[in-house]
Amino acid sequence: MSDIWKSLYSDAANSVKPSPIREILHVIRKPGMISFAGGMPDPAIFPVEQFSEAAGILKSQGRDVLQYGTTEGYAPLKEFLADWTAPRMGRKLAPEELLITSGSTQVVDLLNWSVVNDKDYIIVENPTFMGSTLNMHNHGANYILMPCDEEGMQVDLLPGKIEEVRAKGGNIKYIYCIVNFHNPLGCTMTVERRKKLIDIAYRYNIPILEDDPYGYVRFDGEHLPSLFSMDDRGMVLFACSFSKILAPGTRIGWCAGNKDIIRKMTVFKQGVDVCTSVVSQALVYEYCRLGYLESFLPNIIDHYRKKRNAMEEAFRRYLPLDEVKWVTPEGGFFYWLETPNIPARTLFDKAIEKNVAFVLGEAFYPTGDGGKNNFRMCYTFASPEQIDEGVKRLGEAMRELLNK
Amino acid sequence: MSDIWKSLYSDAANSVKPSPIREILHVIRKPGMISFAGGMPDPAIFPVEQFSEAAGILKSQGRDVLQYGTTEGYAPLKEFLADWTAPRMGRKLAPEELLITSGSTQVVDLLNWSVVNDKDYIIVENPTFMGSTLNMHNHGANYILMPCDEEGMQVDLLPGKIEEVRAKGGNIKYIYCIVNFHNPLGCTMTVERRKKLIDIAYRYNIPILEDDPYGYVRFDGEHLPSLFSMDDRGMVLFACSFSKILAPGTRIGWCAGNKDIIRKMTVFKQGVDVCTSVVSQALVYEYCRLGYLESFLPNIIDHYRKKRNAMEEAFRRYLPLDEVKWVTPEGGFFYWLETPNIPARTLFDKAIEKNVAFVLGEAFYPTGDGGKNNFRMCYTFASPEQIDEGVKRLGEAMRELLNK
Repeated sequence: MSDIWKSLYSDAANSVKPSPIREILHVIRKPGMISFAGGMPDPAIFPVEQFSEAAGILKSQGRDVLQYGTTEGYAPLKEFLADWTAPRMGRKLAPEELLITSGSTQVVDLLNWSVVNDKDYIIVENPTFMGSTLNMHNHGANYILMPCDEEGMQVDLLPGKIEEVRAKGGNIKYIYCIVNFHNPLGCTMTVERRKKLIDIAYRYNIPILEDDPYGYVRFDGEHLPSLFSMDDRGMVLFACSFSKILAPGTRIGWCAGNKDIIRKMTVFKQGVDVCTSVVSQALVYEYCRLGYLESFLPNIIDHYRKKRNAMEEAFRRYLPLDEVKWVTPEGGFFYWLETPNIPARTLFDKAIEKNVAFVLGEAFYPTGDGGKNNFRMCYTFASPEQIDEGVKRLGEAMRELLNK
Repeated sequence: MSDIWKSLYSDAANSVKPSPIREILHVIRKPGMISFAGGMPDPAIFPVEQFSEAAGILKSQGRDVLQYGTTEGYAPLKEFLADWTAPRMGRKLAPEELLITSGSTQVVDLLNWSVVNDKDYIIVENPTFMGSTLNMHNHGANYILMPCDEEGMQVDLLPGKIEEVRAKGGNIKYIYCIVNFHNPLGCTMTVERRKKLIDIAYRYNIPILEDDPYGYVRFDGEHLPSLFSMDDRGMVLFACSFSKILAPGTRIGWCAGNKDIIRKMTVFKQGVDVCTSVVSQALVYEYCRLGYLESFLPNIIDHYRKKRNAMEEAFRRYLPLDEVKWVTPEGGFFYWLETPNIPARTLFDKAIEKNVAFVLGEAFYPTGDGGKNNFRMCYTFASPEQIDEGVKRLGEAMRELLNK
C-alpha cells in the first residue's frame, strides 16, 4: 500500500490538531462510565413524535423537497425564522439577510472563507469553543486571545490588544464572541459590557461574529439584548442553530447579517456543499410550522433546568467547597470549575479510575496556555441520578488528591 | 450602513467567480422558457412514496437519528454502501475506507483541505465540472488543463504536462477525473485509457480523484471497471452521491479510498460541519434497506434513457446536421454540442429570444480558454414534449444565424 497520501498532506493537514473531544469519546465508552464530557443534548427530551409528524412534508412536498435547493436556504424556513427571531434580532430580517447553513459550525467556515487570509487575526475569548478555533486555525488565522471573567470577555482590554496588533501591521478581521451561557465558561456577558463591545467594534471598525447556540435555553432571569439588536451599522453577524432548541441530528443552523457578507458567504457555500439538505430543512420547517418549536421548547428548557439544579445541588453536597469555585450558569449546557490546588489533569486521571469523565480546561485554550486548574462539566446528557452519583465520585477523587 | 465587510474580504473572496449557472437561473425563470441549462434531475421521477415510507425510521430510531452523529457517517448507511458498492469497487470496502459527506462536492472540499497548499497544481479535464474547479480555485490551486476528445481526457498527453510543471518546481497534488458520462462532455473514458491513466498515476506517483456521480445511470452497454477497482495501491479516491440515483435534496454523498486520506478528510470535516445531517442519512439508509434503491433505480434509468432518446431524435429532426457535431452519451445527464460556424454566445442570445436555454461551453473551461463554439444540453429535467419543442426552436435559431 502506497504512502502517497501522507506525502501530499497540505500545511493545514500537517498542522491540524485532532479534537481532544474525540480522544475523550473513546474513554467514555468504557462500561460504567458516567460522562459529563461531550456537550450533547439528552435524547430523552428529543421531540421524536412531533418530528416524525413533520415527515408528512416529505410526501406533500416531495417533488420540491427532494430537488436541489437554493444555496441561500429553503424559503419557507427562512420566512419562519425571519418572524420567529424578530424579538431576539430587534426587527424582522429580510430574506437576503439570512443564510441557512449545515449547522452553525459552517457559519464560521463560510465567514473565514469570506474574510480570512493566512496570518490574519481573529479576536477570541480565551477559553472558547474549540470547534470554531479549529476552523480558524485551518484557515490560517492567528488568534488575539482575550481574558475572560465571570461576565465573559474582558472588553476593557480590547483597545490595548487591538492597538498592539495593529502597531505591528496585523490585520484584524473580526471578534468571535459567545455572549450567552458561554462554552466552556457557562457565563453570560452583561448588558453594560455588550454596549462597550459594540462601541469598541465601531471605534476600531472591526465586525463581530455573535455565536449564540445556547441563547434560547435560558433557565433563570430575562433574555439580554443580542449584540445584533444593539447594532445599527450591520457590523454584527449572528449565528444560531436548531441543535439545542430542537435536535442536533438535523444539522440545520443559520446566520443573520448585513446582506453583503451574507451574499459572499453564499457564494462560498456553493463551493463547499451547494446547499444544505433540503430534506432536513423541510422537516425542521414543518416541525416549526406545526407549532412544535414554540410549544416544545419550554419542555427542553425545563428538562435542562432540572439537570442544572441537580448538578448544583450535587456540587454543594459532595465537593470540598473550600477547594472548588464555579459560577452557576443561567442557561446553556455547562459548568466551568476551578480547583486551585488540584491540577485538572491529575483530577482527570483519578476521576477516570472512578468512572467519571469531564473535559480538561486546557482543551478550550486555543494555544493551550491556560485552564490547568479548570475543567468543564456538561449537565445536559446525564440523568439526574447519574449527575448525583458522578459528582459524588468526583468529590471523592478531589478529597483523595487533597489528602495526599 | 457600514461597508465594513467589503473592506475585509479575503483574497479568495475577491477572486471568487460567481457561478455562470446562477446567472442562467435568472434567465430561465422567464415564463415560457424551455431550459436545458441546469443539470437537474426530473422531480417527476423522484420516489416520493418510497422515500416517505422511509420516514418510519424517524420514529423507530428517533433518539439516535436526532442526536449528533459521528463525523465518519451513519454506521448503518456505511455498512449498506460497503455491500452495495462492492461490484463497482471490485471488493467490499472496510468502514475506515468510507466517509459520508454532505454531497459529493464536499469530497472535493475535504480533499483540497487535506492536500492542497496555495499554488499547488491539480490536473483537470478541460472542460470539466465548474463546481469542483470553483472549490479548487478557492483553495488557491492552479490547474493543469488536459485536452479531451470523445474518449475523455487525452491521457497520452499527461507525461509531457506533468514533466513540464515539475521541471519548473510545481507541486502536483492529484488528477481530477470524471470517467463516466462526463460533465459537460457526456463522453466515457475507454478501458484502455483507464489502464493508461492508472499506469501514469503510478509512474509519476500522483493520486486520482475519480468523481463518478453519473456512473450508475447507464442507458446502453456494460458498466466499465472503475479506476478504483483497477488500483491496488490505494491511489484512487472514489466519489459518488445519491443525487442522481435517488434525489439531490438529500445532499448525501460519499467517498471511498485509502484509510489515511479518509481519516485526514474526516478531521477536516469535523471543522467544517461536524457531521452530515443524521436525519438525512437515516432516511436514505432506510430507503436503501427497504430495497428501493435497488428496485427503483431501473425506473430512473429508463426514464432518462427515454429523454436521451427524445433529444437524440429531436437533434436529428430539427438541427442543421452539417453544422452540428455531438457524441451520443451512453448515460448521465448531458449532450455536448459543437457548432463550428456559430459562436455559442451568439446562438445563446438568439435561443433566449426564442425561449430556449442551455449553458455556454466556455463556462466549463476553468480559465475560460475554450468552448467558444460549444454548449451543454441537459435532457433530464425537461419533458419529452419540451425537448421536442425546445430543440425545434434551437434548430430555427441556428438556421437563422447561418442564413445571415
